[in-house]
Amino acid sequence: TRRGIPEAILAEGKTPEQVASLATTALETTGRALVTRLEDTHFAALEERLEETVPDAAVDRRGATLLATAADHDRPALEATVAIVTAGTVDGPVADEAALICVDAGLAVDRIDDVGVAALTRLIDQVERLRAADVAIVAAGREGALPTVVAGLIDTPVIGVPVSSGYGHGGDGEAALAGMLQSCTVLSVVNVDAGFVAGAQATLIARAIDGARTSGS
Amino acid sequence: TRRGIPEAILAEGKTPEQVASLATTALETTGRALVTRLEDTHFAALEERLEETVPDAAVDRRGATLLATAADHDRPALEATVAIVTAGTVDGPVADEAALICVDAGLAVDRIDDVGVAALTRLIDQVERLRAADVAIVAAGREGALPTVVAGLIDTPVIGVPVSSGYGHGGDGEAALAGMLQSCTVLSVVNVDAGFVAGAQATLIARAIDGARTSGS
Amino acid sequence: TRRGIPEAILAEGKTPEQVASLATTALETTGRALVTRLEDTHFAALEERLEETVPDAAVDRRGATLLATAADHDRPALEATVAIVTAGTVDGPVADEAALICVDAGLAVDRIDDVGVAALTRLIDQVERLRAADVAIVAAGREGALPTVVAGLIDTPVIGVPVSSGYGHGGDGEAALAGMLQSCTVLSVVNVDAGFVAGAQATLIARAIDGARTSGS
Amino acid sequence: TRRGIPEAILAEGKTPEQVASLATTALETTGRALVTRLEDTHFAALEERLEETVPDAAVDRRGATLLATAADHDRPALEATVAIVTAGTVDGPVADEAALICVDAGLAVDRIDDVGVAALTRLIDQVERLRAADVAIVAAGREGALPTVVAGLIDTPVIGVPVSSGYGHGGDGEAALAGMLQSCTVLSVVNVDAGFVAGAQATLIARAIDGARTSGS
Amino acid sequence: TRRGIPEAILAEGKTPEQVASLATTALETTGRALVTRLEDTHFAALEERLEETVPDAAVDRRGATLLATAADHDRPALEATVAIVTAGTVDGPVADEAALICVDAGLAVDRIDDVGVAALTRLIDQVERLRAADVAIVAAGREGALPTVVAGLIDTPVIGVPVSSGYGHGGDGEAALAGMLQSCTVLSVVNVDAGFVAGAQATLIARAIDGARTSGS
Amino acid sequence: TRRGIPEAILAEGKTPEQVASLATTALETTGRALVTRLEDTHFAALEERLEETVPDAAVDRRGATLLATAADHDRPALEATVAIVTAGTVDGPVADEAALICVDAGLAVDRIDDVGVAALTRLIDQVERLRAADVAIVAAGREGALPTVVAGLIDTPVIGVPVSSGYGHGGDGEAALAGMLQSCTVLSVVNVDAGFVAGAQATLIARAIDGARTSGS
Amino acid sequence: TRRGIPEAILAEGKTPEQVASLATTALETTGRALVTRLEDTHFAALEERLEETVPDAAVDRRGATLLATAADHDRPALEATVAIVTAGTVDGPVADEAALICVDAGLAVDRIDDVGVAALTRLIDQVERLRAADVAIVAAGREGALPTVVAGLIDTPVIGVPVSSGYGHGGDGEAALAGMLQSCTVLSVVNVDAGFVAGAQATLIARAIDGARTSGS
Amino acid sequence: TRRGIPEAILAEGKTPEQVASLATTALETTGRALVTRLEDTHFAALEERLEETVPDAAVDRRGATLLATAADHDRPALEATVAIVTAGTVDGPVADEAALICVDAGLAVDRIDDVGVAALTRLIDQVERLRAADVAIVAAGREGALPTVVAGLIDTPVIGVPVSSGYGHGGDGEAALAGMLQSCTVLSVVNVDAGFVAGAQATLIARAIDGARTSGS
Ligand SMILES: Nc1ncnc2c1ncn2[C@@H]1O[C@H](COP(=O)(O)O)[C@@H](O)[C@H]1O
Ligand SMILES: Nc1ncnc2c1ncn2[C@@H]1O[C@H](COP(=O)(O)O)[C@@H](O)[C@H]1O
Ligand SMILES: Nc1ncnc2c1ncn2[C@@H]1O[C@H](COP(=O)(O)O)[C@@H](O)[C@H]1O
Ligand SMILES: Nc1ncnc2c1ncn2[C@@H]1O[C@H](COP(=O)(O)O)[C@@H](O)[C@H]1O
Ligand SMILES: [Mg+2]
Ligand SMILES: [Mg+2]
Ligand SMILES: [Mg+2]
Ligand SMILES: [Mg+2]
Ligand SMILES: [Mg+2]
Ligand SMILES: [Mg+2]
Ligand SMILES: [Mg+2]
Ligand SMILES: [Mg+2]
Repeated sequence: TRRGIPEAILAEGKTPEQVASLATTALETTGRALVTRLEDTHFAALEERLEETVPDAAVDRRGATLLATAADHDRPALEATVAIVTAGTVDGPVADEAALICVDAGLAVDRIDDVGVAALTRLIDQVERLRAADVAIVAAGREGALPTVVAGLIDTPVIGVPVSSGYGHGGDGEAALAGMLQSCTVLSVVNVDAGFVAGAQATLIARAIDGARTSGS
Repeated sequence: TRRGIPEAILAEGKTPEQVASLATTALETTGRALVTRLEDTHFAALEERLEETVPDAAVDRRGATLLATAADHDRPALEATVAIVTAGTVDGPVADEAALICVDAGLAVDRIDDVGVAALTRLIDQVERLRAADVAIVAAGREGALPTVVAGLIDTPVIGVPVSSGYGHGGDGEAALAGMLQSCTVLSVVNVDAGFVAGAQATLIARAIDGARTSGS
Repeated sequence: TRRGIPEAILAEGKTPEQVASLATTALETTGRALVTRLEDTHFAALEERLEETVPDAAVDRRGATLLATAADHDRPALEATVAIVTAGTVDGPVADEAALICVDAGLAVDRIDDVGVAALTRLIDQVERLRAADVAIVAAGREGALPTVVAGLIDTPVIGVPVSSGYGHGGDGEAALAGMLQSCTVLSVVNVDAGFVAGAQATLIARAIDGARTSGS
Repeated sequence: TRRGIPEAILAEGKTPEQVASLATTALETTGRALVTRLEDTHFAALEERLEETVPDAAVDRRGATLLATAADHDRPALEATVAIVTAGTVDGPVADEAALICVDAGLAVDRIDDVGVAALTRLIDQVERLRAADVAIVAAGREGALPTVVAGLIDTPVIGVPVSSGYGHGGDGEAALAGMLQSCTVLSVVNVDAGFVAGAQATLIARAIDGARTSGS
Repeated sequence: TRRGIPEAILAEGKTPEQVASLATTALETTGRALVTRLEDTHFAALEERLEETVPDAAVDRRGATLLATAADHDRPALEATVAIVTAGTVDGPVADEAALICVDAGLAVDRIDDVGVAALTRLIDQVERLRAADVAIVAAGREGALPTVVAGLIDTPVIGVPVSSGYGHGGDGEAALAGMLQSCTVLSVVNVDAGFVAGAQATLIARAIDGARTSGS
Repeated sequence: TRRGIPEAILAEGKTPEQVASLATTALETTGRALVTRLEDTHFAALEERLEETVPDAAVDRRGATLLATAADHDRPALEATVAIVTAGTVDGPVADEAALICVDAGLAVDRIDDVGVAALTRLIDQVERLRAADVAIVAAGREGALPTVVAGLIDTPVIGVPVSSGYGHGGDGEAALAGMLQSCTVLSVVNVDAGFVAGAQATLIARAIDGARTSGS
Repeated sequence: TRRGIPEAILAEGKTPEQVASLATTALETTGRALVTRLEDTHFAALEERLEETVPDAAVDRRGATLLATAADHDRPALEATVAIVTAGTVDGPVADEAALICVDAGLAVDRIDDVGVAALTRLIDQVERLRAADVAIVAAGREGALPTVVAGLIDTPVIGVPVSSGYGHGGDGEAALAGMLQSCTVLSVVNVDAGFVAGAQATLIARAIDGARTSGS
Repeated sequence: TRRGIPEAILAEGKTPEQVASLATTALETTGRALVTRLEDTHFAALEERLEETVPDAAVDRRGATLLATAADHDRPALEATVAIVTAGTVDGPVADEAALICVDAGLAVDRIDDVGVAALTRLIDQVERLRAADVAIVAAGREGALPTVVAGLIDTPVIGVPVSSGYGHGGDGEAALAGMLQSCTVLSVVNVDAGFVAGAQATLIARAIDGARTSGS
């Protein structure tokens, strides 16, 4: 593990067979397997392999991310919640990546979708849920303004994730990244499309809060 | 005039004496003089010269922009209003440049300041004023999100002006420019710090509306 | 709708079936469906579906954009015209996207093609048509000089759309975008290839003019 | 306050008199004043003004940042520690800015200097102090590798701050920023030279931990 | 000499005394001295020195460029003309640099100023002069469209010189450079502000034409 | 024609059938057809079509460029030579594009290949041929140094063409373009891979020289 | 050979047959053939061809690089060692390219893998091997910090090779390149993914050391 | 020391007094002091201080670099030579920085100036001196082609140093840097203007050769 964060298997650039093998091994040795950036061919191979070898594993696929858990796996239960917020549909897969890292680590995840800044009322309707979380991950592409607006509404730490969902000048996530770095409120940022890193950083923060809650230290 | 927009004198790169002469000539021949990007030395020279030559001219200085009007100048009175909106204090001089172009052209200007996206309630309090205008210019630096949020609240045309008020990655206005171009709502954009162009474009739009209002064509 | 602009369906990244379903639903609920950035496979699926479900819909396909209208759809008729101008053949699809948004919103569209700046006489021949419109959209790739030259000839608002039609240094639309932002006349700009945004912004301007014309306000 | 973070006064672009007035007012109304990016002339004016008006204020100047505290100010005492780490001397002022924000907010600050990655033993000697903190801010210029190496050694959240201390290709902080975003471990990042934002984000994290510690929630 | 082009002295970065000495030496040994990018202090020192040492030299200063010629210097007389065209006043100094290189080499120079593309009639009025030249240098900043439009009007070689006269995105000459490289007609380009290189390249072309004219080879 | 340069058909983005039709039409109406950036499928379709319709046309294919000439076409014969120089094999197709434009226009072409700057003796062996030409086109990728070195050896005009043949930092032709613009000798430049423009500009220069040679004007 | 370095055949952009022919010829004339950036289809064609023509050749394939050696080839045996170090699995192919160049030239290669900076102990465990080499090549992607850390541990020359293995901002090797250029210790750098250049430069250094060792000069 | 390279004092950003003190201390404790990027005010203060405290120190100032050596300092004498080559006068200070690092470390330095690629004969005249050195540092600005041409002439390692001596596109050393990274021969590169790093890297290479020469290991 890196920094106490469960390892993930990056499917991109691997064959379906390699991914199936790596995931099965992870499942058998650590009780869970997290696969990111997988395509349908990876998924098919993995599903088939699991049916043969670990048929009672629970499989949770969201977008291009998948978390498989052995029936007897003893997931930690952290007393902490992360809000994962998206501006629009295209931000979904990046948020999914972040969400399953948090789930795997034992956090409660509250997913709040489709609250982009061009329609403020949808966002304002969710303020109570946003305030109830211990930390928020906000994924947004195009102009990347959502993390700033969310951070202006709550007093807990916000991690911005720029998404490469635009086109034209800055559409590869560079506009969103620059906008989040220039934010006129307080937030920190991860790389473009780096749902994994955002989820892991949120886990580190939430775990510290959980530690303080449960043991006072 | 370019496109029916009154000419402006760009003080940057000119001596105080050159600016004073050009402005006096403009005042004497066209009844008004608009000077942009001027410094205190330009202002001092100009003030002195005007006192000598056109002592009854009215002088309206805002930030680095100045509009001098002869006592007998017959300014057109357009039946149209432009809202000029800023996110914070640093955006002021760019908004001033836009505002005086509009004033010079005969528009009513409604200036709405300090309504940046990190504190949404201040902005939402101004929705009625925003909706009352025929066209809106929104100047914003840093992440440049304000034009998007304003455009999400109103149905009139919005022109975004990126301001070079940040530091670090994209702080020279590039983050704001890219963000406005990527906006997930509908707006058009001018160059970084181009208050003049924004004011002139708003004037062209407002003049067309005024023309339709007053003559039905 | 965003800002009173009819919604569009972005085909890019969707399957033919998804596009066919979304368009059929839009047609049935709003009387029209606008699809952008579609490919032939999207078109085939959509055509087949429409034949089955809404056989009397009128289909207007231009380039990669398609507007389907129900027989009984009551399109608004705005008393306003937008000129849509292109420099060369490659700019066509971006202009098509802008044009159908305007058509959908009820504007009259005057399309003026192939008047690039390397052959001025073709452009000058069209000055009367350009002057007759209430607002102009000018799409140009390569060096993107056409909006500047058009704006120098008329006194109505011009919206420049940079097109990604070049190769080499700045050929992805960046040269055209930078050139339009640097324009030595008055115009505002949208993102590279953003025909949709240009059409929508022109609609907002034209609708305001129409409102003033028809009701004086 | 933004997000419960005490306000700071940015001296850059203000006259010494303006800074002195703003700081005195802040001190009189909130019991403390934080000034960032100040020069010696600002400092002189401020010192003189304070001697006249609030002579018993305690003044803590570090690099270009200054925290003045009224004798009777009741600073909160958070039960949480932030480690603030620098690679070399040039990173000092950015770390100072972060440090005084944290001090002002009531955090314990553990400053660890001059542990750049070209001499690993100096860093490894500090591992115990690094592990004892609740959150770490790591400021590094040039290649910006220090946050990655620190994060590899500890399990608490790390915030990287790129510093504009190099020369040549990427020497304005861009190399460090890109390096931190590409980090092969888990960290989040703020803008180049954004000591304030790093300190504020660390404060939000530490305050949440403190809240959990002291009240279990 | 480089490529048969007379040498020039770059004043930038040299003291007034150094420039005065170098120019005097050039004058005494080659009969002429060309100084580029000089400031008033360079000019004063040079003027004084020449009065003392070569009082009958003819001095031709244009903008920041100066050509001093000894009374008995035998300048070549090429039978060829270069048109040097500018879009606006700010392009003047770059055109001056190009012009004096050509004069020094013995070309006839036809200077055509202030014919920027936002006011086409001024340009079209000069078509005959443009067509009469053997080669054209066109200096333009901002969007840099003028070389393209000029090249569309004539059949002789055009050399574009981007000028760093804008502000904001691409205002340092990058927009003009990219625009000229993307030109949809035929032209070649030199570096931003490189009046010297444009003048020298035009000289090489004109000299070849002159050679063919006078000797048929 | 643009600037008296015969038109070319850009195959890129067109179907084989479109290219075959356009080329046949050009051949029938103007006696020749020049096709650039064609692939084997374009070539096959074109060959087949020509066999049917213009079986006696002469076809000259070099790299991705093709010049077809009708048996009775009366090509102009300019009394002028262009040297076309390449650094290595990868620069071939760009040089081919330039060469066939020149051939089509009636110039003599002297092609000098594989004389890159890492092996100077091969280049120096060709100095006489280089000096014999009236104008030189030099195509070079990677660091793009060859035009500078060639220009240092001859006194005729040199046009540099950057080629996108590298990889890594600047490998898309940007390093070569920047190097040619920074050249410490005298040359002008066209866009990356713009063999067509280089050939056309060389033609304009050579035609002027030919004109002077044959008529003295 | 370039600089006494054996020639390599770049498979990229060549057909399997071309690669097979070129390699067979090299093998027959120089006793060895080095092929870089080859794909499985190249490999299959080459293997088949070798079986027919040079069946006793020894084939050493690593990643996308292949070194074939004739049975009777007399490889030089340099008395010098190069350490080739990678941060992670993705850096392998670039290191392979460097390694086989060194092997071909007769160097001893010590390959040290998977010692990225996020887990310092793995690196520190290898210090003795690192110190035993005469020169080190360090390949690293993402933030590219490994060459700096390695250079801080040893006193022999280090050559950094940035690898294009990341995603998002700077993920194409630009972050790693900028980081290595900004390194706060002493190293030199080659282009992104330029394993060949790194291997060749290391060979030049090692050969000089070998020369001094074996002959004292 | 870093990597066995004597420490240098970077004057940039330090007061004359600070530089004088640091240098005196270095001289007294290590027998020598190397100061880089110093201005005349630093030099004056240092000279005065040395006269008072270490009057018999030898001072070697070249450009902005200075090496002071105590009378009794025992400089190592390495049996190895570095050639330091410049393209033109502007490259001098960067070469000076490299040279004095090498002198301080005990290398023989052979300085070869003014052999830029636009005049090849001057370079070719120096081939014997170039070949006689054990390693070459080549500093070049503008298009940065000189290291490639030098490397094509010799078989010893070449280190390229890009110099920020141009103007316009890539004139800040970026064109030279990109060109050197794209070099079609074998060389490694350091950051723009990084004479110090180039000198230090050459020292590491030369010291290894010296070690092999004098002890055979
Ligand atoms: N989407 C992702 N983004 C960043 N890192 C990842 C991602 N998925 C997996 N990883 C990490 O990348 C490293 C290499 O993964 P692998 O190539 O599967 O060995 C492991 O440490 C994973 O935890
Ligand atoms: N070509 C386009 N450019 C910009 N926005 C578009 C385009 N086509 C559709 N849209 C808008 O993009 C948003 C998302 O579309 P969809 O992914 O279809 O839900 C909708 O609000 C559409 O109106
Ligand atoms: N490789 C090329 N580079 C630049 N322009 C070209 C090229 N090939 C053809 N052209 C020109 O591009 C224009 C449009 O070509 P087409 O799309 O075939 O009508 C014509 O004026 C051609 O002369
Ligand atoms: N011109 C230079 N370029 C790169 N590093 C330098 C330069 N001059 C001094 N240094 C090094 O920079 C580090 C910091 O120097 P200082 O700020 O003087 O303590 C020391 O390790 C010096 O050896
Ligand atoms: Mg967004
Ligand atoms: Mg803003
Ligand atoms: Mg155009
Ligand atoms: Mg660092
Ligand atoms: Mg222009
Ligand atoms: Mg080359
Ligand atoms: Mg790395
Ligand atoms: Mg050079």
